[in-house]
Amino acid sequence: MATYAKERKMANAIRFLAAEMIEKAKSGHPGMPLGIADVATMLFSKFIKVNPQNPKWFDRDRFVLSAGHASSLLYSLFYLLGYKDITLDDLQNFRQLGAKTAGHPEYGHMLGIDMTTGPLGEGISSAVGMALAEKLTSDMFGSEVCDHKTYVIMGDGCLMEGVAMEAIALAGHWQLNKLIAIWDDNQVTIDGRTDIASSTDMKALFAAHQWNVISIDGHDFAQIEKALAAAQTSERPTLIAARTKIGYGAPDKCDTPKCHGSPLGAEELTGMRQNLDWPFAPFEVPEDVLADWRQAGERNEALDKEWQKRAQAKGRTFADFVAGKLPQNWDNKLNELKERALQEKPEVATRKASNMCLEAIVPQLPQLIGGSADLSSPNMTKTTASAPIKRQNLSGNYIEYGIREHAMAAIMNGLALHGGFVPYGGTFLVFSDFMRPAMRLAALMGLREIYVLTHDSIGVGEDGPTHQPIEHLASLRAMPNMLTFRPCDVIETAEAWQLAIAQEKRPSVLALSRQNLPLLRENTRENLTAKGAYIIRGKAEGRQATLIATGSEVALAVAAYEELKTKGIATAVVSMPCQELFDEQPFAYQDAVLGSAPRIAVEAASKFGWEKYVGLNGDIIGMDGFGASAPAKDLYAHFGITKDEIVEAVEDALKK
Amino acid sequence: MATYAKERKMANAIRFLAAEMIEKAKSGHPGMPLGIADVATMLFSKFIKVNPQNPKWFDRDRFVLSAGHASSLLYSLFYLLGYKDITLDDLQNFRQLGAKTAGHPEYGHMLGIDMTTGPLGEGISSAVGMALAEKLTSDMFGSEVCDHKTYVIMGDGCLMEGVAMEAIALAGHWQLNKLIAIWDDNQVTIDGRTDIASSTDMKALFAAHQWNVISIDGHDFAQIEKALAAAQTSERPTLIAARTKIGYGAPDKCDTPKCHGSPLGAEELTGMRQNLDWPFAPFEVPEDVLADWRQAGERNEALDKEWQKRAQAKGRTFADFVAGKLPQNWDNKLNELKERALQEKPEVATRKASNMCLEAIVPQLPQLIGGSADLSSPNMTKTTASAPIKRQNLSGNYIEYGIREHAMAAIMNGLALHGGFVPYGGTFLVFSDFMRPAMRLAALMGLREIYVLTHDSIGVGEDGPTHQPIEHLASLRAMPNMLTFRPCDVIETAEAWQLAIAQEKRPSVLALSRQNLPLLRENTRENLTAKGAYIIRGKAEGRQATLIATGSEVALAVAAYEELKTKGIATAVVSMPCQELFDEQPFAYQDAVLGSAPRIAVEAASKFGWEKYVGLNGDIIGMDGFGASAPAKDLYAHFGITKDEIVEAVEDALKK
Repeated sequence: MATYAKERKMANAIRFLAAEMIEKAKSGHPGMPLGIADVATMLFSKFIKVNPQNPKWFDRDRFVLSAGHASSLLYSLFYLLGYKDITLDDLQNFRQLGAKTAGHPEYGHMLGIDMTTGPLGEGISSAVGMALAEKLTSDMFGSEVCDHKTYVIMGDGCLMEGVAMEAIALAGHWQLNKLIAIWDDNQVTIDGRTDIASSTDMKALFAAHQWNVISIDGHDFAQIEKALAAAQTSERPTLIAARTKIGYGAPDKCDTPKCHGSPLGAEELTGMRQNLDWPFAPFEVPEDVLADWRQAGERNEALDKEWQKRAQAKGRTFADFVAGKLPQNWDNKLNELKERALQEKPEVATRKASNMCLEAIVPQLPQLIGGSADLSSPNMTKTTASAPIKRQNLSGNYIEYGIREHAMAAIMNGLALHGGFVPYGGTFLVFSDFMRPAMRLAALMGLREIYVLTHDSIGVGEDGPTHQPIEHLASLRAMPNMLTFRPCDVIETAEAWQLAIAQEKRPSVLALSRQNLPLLRENTRENLTAKGAYIIRGKAEGRQATLIATGSEVALAVAAYEELKTKGIATAVVSMPCQELFDEQPFAYQDAVLGSAPRIAVEAASKFGWEKYVGLNGDIIGMDGFGASAPAKDLYAHFGITKDEIVEAVEDALKK
Repeated sequence: MATYAKERKMANAIRFLAAEMIEKAKSGHPGMPLGIADVATMLFSKFIKVNPQNPKWFDRDRFVLSAGHASSLLYSLFYLLGYKDITLDDLQNFRQLGAKTAGHPEYGHMLGIDMTTGPLGEGISSAVGMALAEKLTSDMFGSEVCDHKTYVIMGDGCLMEGVAMEAIALAGHWQLNKLIAIWDDNQVTIDGRTDIASSTDMKALFAAHQWNVISIDGHDFAQIEKALAAAQTSERPTLIAARTKIGYGAPDKCDTPKCHGSPLGAEELTGMRQNLDWPFAPFEVPEDVLADWRQAGERNEALDKEWQKRAQAKGRTFADFVAGKLPQNWDNKLNELKERALQEKPEVATRKASNMCLEAIVPQLPQLIGGSADLSSPNMTKTTASAPIKRQNLSGNYIEYGIREHAMAAIMNGLALHGGFVPYGGTFLVFSDFMRPAMRLAALMGLREIYVLTHDSIGVGEDGPTHQPIEHLASLRAMPNMLTFRPCDVIETAEAWQLAIAQEKRPSVLALSRQNLPLLRENTRENLTAKGAYIIRGKAEGRQATLIATGSEVALAVAAYEELKTKGIATAVVSMPCQELFDEQPFAYQDAVLGSAPRIAVEAASKFGWEKYVGLNGDIIGMDGFGASAPAKDLYAHFGITKDEIVEAVEDALKK
């Protein structure tokens, strides 16, 4: 019978590195690294397929530390395994300014981190997206170049969050059998023991979601090994419920909330050294233990080399997919669409315009993977070339997420993180609130994703204020590293799609109308949306007022411009489909567009933020409160967002 | 054996009213009202305890239509039962401007609507709060004045949403046996049959959450009656899984997604009249059927009268509780706290200041019911007078929600809607994203609630960007009908608590610092936070620049003010703890506070929205991107939010 003496020491190496990092930083979360070290040791020394010399290996097993506060566990593991992007210095610099070893694992800060985690529930949910991406990539290019597991370590907190519940339902539905989620069942959270807030039979719950469930003692290496081995061949996603003790080894704080979120302190560390028979100095790893870890780190080098050969044999299409490189001229048909629109002047909702764009690009971009949170037909996200992924056959380019906006956005993160895919997903703009935490992570990680958010104002009409976004445009514009597009017609919508797909390092929102809108653009020479804002009617020179509008309100501004012209008042209409891109333009361009005449902004949304463009002396025609239930036209009149109001505002401004 | 011929007709009356309302409005969702009419008829004619003549009866059974798109069901029921606030005209005016019969049920628009619903999952989650409120009220005042059920009708969509999963876990944990949730299991959503996106055994899932589960055919009146009867005496919350056919009665669209979200059309309606043997004109209800309904509506009048007597006997304390009236001088101790702070000048984090406030008010306000999403100690929401509610004993004034921010906010809505309680709940400001949909409903419904959102900037420090709010203040300020407070010291924090609790018709956010802050206020004569902003240092007259700051940055602005004074530059520092309240002040006050000198805003958050106060020529010292992981002081220096930067900005402004 194996004694696992070697593994026990390897686990203790993690424990002491993690605890000492936190001690030195005077900040961090020691409880979980200590508790899950045994499981992590078995996983990383015997099972996981990674190559520390090539952390970006496309066919590596993905690892998501859903309980991101246990970052010191991950950094210790990476150091011990010999990841080239981390040194002992990095460990000693934990949580300091500029360190790769950030407080929570940050994707892009250190090679090997597969996802930024910290907000609980997000990691497991995005891991579902990674496991799906594996299946789809394998389907597209063959299992010889894509055949890996997705591992997750999650805490009690992850399993209380709703987003995780949504995502595990989908993982069970899709039977993602290469997803192996380890639950660090330590029964302790910040506020106390989990039984103060939970009586759920979590194993029965996962079984209800069609998962394979294995229960083990998380400190019994034999059980851990057996469970991980069994999970390798499961036909369903596997939950390994590992009963552990938080703060394992700490004499007094073990099994209490006290070790969750602050350094153990010198006294506990001394006791822990005795308890675990670890007479070594801080950050000292005995040579034999380090050698065992480094040997474990070298396990898969040959596999990686063999894979590289198979991948090369696949040729350029696969290489481009992995690199996220789009086919040349992928947007040719979008350009044609714009030309045709200029001729035919279609009067359609921008959600329909978006559908026309998708019809033009989905066949060109096999890596584009769409979906909707049960609003495929109102969002118009599905095209004739969209093939919904079926439970029985994980193949296709369209995901029916069910009424699970948050899981959708989290799974989109997983698809993008896995590499290759460009996900887009639809819901109503008002329900972007349900998925903000995942959208924020997309922005923070700099992922290329497109949120197709239709029904973007009181133009929703009869469904009323619960379905009419007001503050959402402002809320999304306030989020760093995300573009919010609100196009006014077919041509701007096509331009927005071109730009959104071209953004390699940030997500984009497309806010689209439910109601029909006229074609306003008079040329397609240049992608004017790329500048964020431009004069769509009137002349810069000699204008007496500037009307700034977005989306469905540009048509109102143009109508007001026409009427004012008959009255002998010269105005210019600025269409501003993307504030963020406009803000990135040179000051001279901004100034030329906005001019020095009085400015009036028009948007059927919260006025919040518009002073940035109209200043303290400008006027804003928008919403001051929530919407109401009525036909859209009645609402626009009721809330005073009309051509007449704009005309009056200009005349008032000129009187001042 | 009962034939239920009467009930069948009563149900058909609902079906035709609902379908014709939608037909006339040319907009609405007929599928669900048709499908669930049989269950609703049994519930409303034989079980539910409501009095249509007194829709606000405190001890009525609560009813939440979690699937709010079935609003026509609710309005039809109310009309048939004889609710005094609805007429046939209202039904015919469905979804029109100003109608009580809004597209989704709107709390406050029509007496009898217990909650605004529409965003799926929110209804069932808030119903958990209502059922908890019933237990707590009963515990406080006796079951003779509070002893009622909470009924919910929910669709497939509600049970896909994460928030519902969080809330049903808590309902099971608390064993809320008077909560009876009916699942309209019609297996159809907008995108198709539910099996395209779900394979969960929902009954096993509820059982895992410790619910009582009953399965029935939702068109078999005997089964419906038996299930509802059994639920009355359950020791656990009950799920009645009612298998129904969406669009029941419609010849072609029944059991298909086609009847979900648009009018049936004349042809289907004709067929439905034949199918259901209903030869009556649109909006015509045969006299005998209407009489049966009206009789059902009168069932509980005597019960209500008896209850009124018992309630009166309880005296003024109970009456005030029901009316939401606070005890006189409830904030005396807050005033004392302010005085003491003025003397002792404590340097504490505003989260600690908030805790001091709570220590002063929790004992005075038995209706104040606190809680946290597993961050009680960092949020400092728990006081020495806080009694956590235990599973074994639903009594107390503090709720340990677990790591379920969204359910927390939804349950707070239920507590407030039930009447009597003033809920407050804590999490980190950055995680307000997780609960935005429920916060928005609180704002839309105009509920008195307080969100205690600590760790409100990069001042979070080492935990890094996933835990550092940036865009959240702007996002919350953009939301209509909600106050966002960001106090700078103990005195402003106390003022903010006074104001938040006094807001009877809107929720408030308190954004509070993790880090210690000096006492800056020099007087307590007036609640200056009530004006939203005021000059805290310097003079209005003769200032050369105005510094506007909130929360933790007011101290930086004051330090800059002092340094500039030594340089002979006169500035005024405006503390702006609440933009919304400042915006409500007369223009003359706003103008007097902000002055005409150059303005510089300072806030360790997204700059988005600050142009409203500094204009196009002002300066904003804030964040342009996400935060980072490092000690807080290092981050402030790194991101240039320092006294020196402010001094420099003023000097630059004066050079212009």
